[in-house]
Amino acid sequence: MTLPRLRLKANADRRLRAGHLWVYSNEVDVAATPLNGFAAGDQAVLEAAGGKPLGVVALSPNNLICARLLSRDAELALDKSLLVHRLNVALSLRERLFDTPFYRLVYGDADLLPGLVVDRFGDILVVQLASATMERNKDAVLEALLQVLKPRGVLWKNDSAARDAEGLERYVDVAHGDVPDWVALEENGVKFEAPVRDGQKTGWFYDHRMNRARLAPYVKGKRVLDLFSYIGGWGIQAAAFGASEVVCVDASEFALDGVERNAALNGLSEVVASIEGDVFEALRELKAAEERFDVVVADPPAFIKRKKDLKNGEAAYRRLNEQAMRLLNKDGILVSASCSMHLPEDDLQGLLLGSARHLDRTLQLLERGGQGPDHPVHPAIPETRYIKSLTCRLLPNA
Amino acid sequence: MTLPRLRLKANADRRLRAGHLWVYSNEVDVAATPLNGFAAGDQAVLEAAGGKPLGVVALSPNNLICARLLSRDAELALDKSLLVHRLNVALSLRERLFDTPFYRLVYGDADLLPGLVVDRFGDILVVQLASATMERNKDAVLEALLQVLKPRGVLWKNDSAARDAEGLERYVDVAHGDVPDWVALEENGVKFEAPVRDGQKTGWFYDHRMNRARLAPYVKGKRVLDLFSYIGGWGIQAAAFGASEVVCVDASEFALDGVERNAALNGLSEVVASIEGDVFEALRELKAAEERFDVVVADPPAFIKRKKDLKNGEAAYRRLNEQAMRLLNKDGILVSASCSMHLPEDDLQGLLLGSARHLDRTLQLLERGGQGPDHPVHPAIPETRYIKSLTCRLLPNA
Repeated sequence: MTLPRLRLKANADRRLRAGHLWVYSNEVDVAATPLNGFAAGDQAVLEAAGGKPLGVVALSPNNLICARLLSRDAELALDKSLLVHRLNVALSLRERLFDTPFYRLVYGDADLLPGLVVDRFGDILVVQLASATMERNKDAVLEALLQVLKPRGVLWKNDSAARDAEGLERYVDVAHGDVPDWVALEENGVKFEAPVRDGQKTGWFYDHRMNRARLAPYVKGKRVLDLFSYIGGWGIQAAAFGASEVVCVDASEFALDGVERNAALNGLSEVVASIEGDVFEALRELKAAEERFDVVVADPPAFIKRKKDLKNGEAAYRRLNEQAMRLLNKDGILVSASCSMHLPEDDLQGLLLGSARHLDRTLQLLERGGQGPDHPVHPAIPETRYIKSLTCRLLPNA
Repeated sequence: MTLPRLRLKANADRRLRAGHLWVYSNEVDVAATPLNGFAAGDQAVLEAAGGKPLGVVALSPNNLICARLLSRDAELALDKSLLVHRLNVALSLRERLFDTPFYRLVYGDADLLPGLVVDRFGDILVVQLASATMERNKDAVLEALLQVLKPRGVLWKNDSAARDAEGLERYVDVAHGDVPDWVALEENGVKFEAPVRDGQKTGWFYDHRMNRARLAPYVKGKRVLDLFSYIGGWGIQAAAFGASEVVCVDASEFALDGVERNAALNGLSEVVASIEGDVFEALRELKAAEERFDVVVADPPAFIKRKKDLKNGEAAYRRLNEQAMRLLNKDGILVSASCSMHLPEDDLQGLLLGSARHLDRTLQLLERGGQGPDHPVHPAIPETRYIKSLTCRLLPNA
């Protein structure tokens, strides 16, 4: 296979040599290798200005990030053989980390498979293809997954907004075998079923696994509020760890049906209640009713999706956390999470401190958590690190 | 008790209102309240430029940080009663967090007790007084500890360099009862004995507890190298979690005697070996002998004690981690820790990436750990956050 070449401008190879994987369109020597000579999904050998090959890239010629490194060996293009190799490398880490087969098996760039996400639910795999190159190679992706994991079912969950920028249709489709609507998983010893077809993203958020595990010492015998609960990832684990009462709040009836289902699955229906409605509204009503909680978990959807949302998004995080603090008992714990890539951990911490001071409370920061190790961070790409979870203790100000 | 007043300049109260606890000497209105009118260890009511009281401070009039907030209530000065209250607040958090009485009970500013550190080893307490105010109130500190915890023994471990700046003598002395040379503790289910009198700091580093717990999935059946092992905190836990072989390296014969003692205590003497000598030297010798490890833990003493050490210190971290990487087997894990307050986590990560690239390896960042929740971070004081632990996977570059 002879690949075309993509030539960089002088010095534009430096960031890549230092570890990064992305090429920006203004770094390409378009006189030598015009970007409009490529179609989305093409592969090419990337070369430095002097002609030295740097590896193979996947092309998205119409995007700001116009190419992503697939390998640092100019002979290693994306095909079934490379996919099988990368899957085995990814799998060996997860098998070392986890006793049960429930985890993110592939996390894009950080597993050197840009544009590919695979969540494993035992023998069911849910796959997201987010680049034109992965889409074009979907048969090879499927064959590689079948060879390495021998799954009972594989689902294409190709309905993310990221596909629009690649000019890809959105669709959800069974790729192989049999995929039930609700799929079983286990996290931190607690059983769940996730709606892989109709739920958010792949149906489950494995990324907060370790942060949820850390709830255990804080919730025993306590009253817990789970805001933006979705299907109960935090709340039902809190109940399983011994909370005396858990209230899950979500705007989606479908999500709260999932809470009920998962509570029943663990024999915790007596302990877990739910409130359907807008979370900010529910917080006001709980305050008005003088309800109080020992632990509040606030894990909202990304309030800052793009940089231009920054100001409004920060205000929303602040409002959410301040209202959550108002519902805490005297020696209360707030677990404040954010999945907004554009909100650095220190800024979230600053917002929490500001709210605590505004309410005349003292805040101790007890734990900082990130995404679990099945979502490795690529050390040169800050965007691959997105989950923040801050566990805070709120004390009277004396 | 009528306290003297310490007056701030205009606007110098802003940082304190926003949550900070420290006053810098250039923020004091020395015309109104000259700093040389105070002795080290005095207390005063801190007031804003307009005269509004902000709380009570402990004074170190000759230091850059000339005062630290003890309370935000002008009526609440440091005395036995406030100490008892603060100790109870600190204790209730630790009792919620831990099943066994082995933890840092008081962590200075973050527990609103600036200048006081207390490590608890069951019924033995090891106390560090790092400010003139705490030193002057040592009788009250002892009485409060006896009242709240009824310990069998209390040790003053007052030999830190921080005391010099406060004009305090260094000494180690039994404050109460009976304190053996080696004191028992348990961490993550593993037994240890720590040399509280003759060891480093309080004899044990509780701060890495959670990071050591996270060794478990990485070390099972593996060969582990523990650099700067001290008395085996990491290495012996790795062995207890199922490592096939552990090699501890430390320059101190005394520390390695502790490794041997603690290995025996857990029936792990067969698994744990040690090398006495300079760590950098040992790394060169291991390399020359073609020794390889599956997991290397590099948790050195602070290479950057003061800001002026930054350049040399960063070079030392880089050298250490790069040499450690050279000893890793193909799919190896490096746990790289730093307790240097002046080395931000992102800089440590950058050093590791640089070394990996230099060795032509791919680095995945799997976990980021900090100090455990018995060392709370004060959200307004970055200096209270000092522990970093990065768990990395090193892969061949393909």
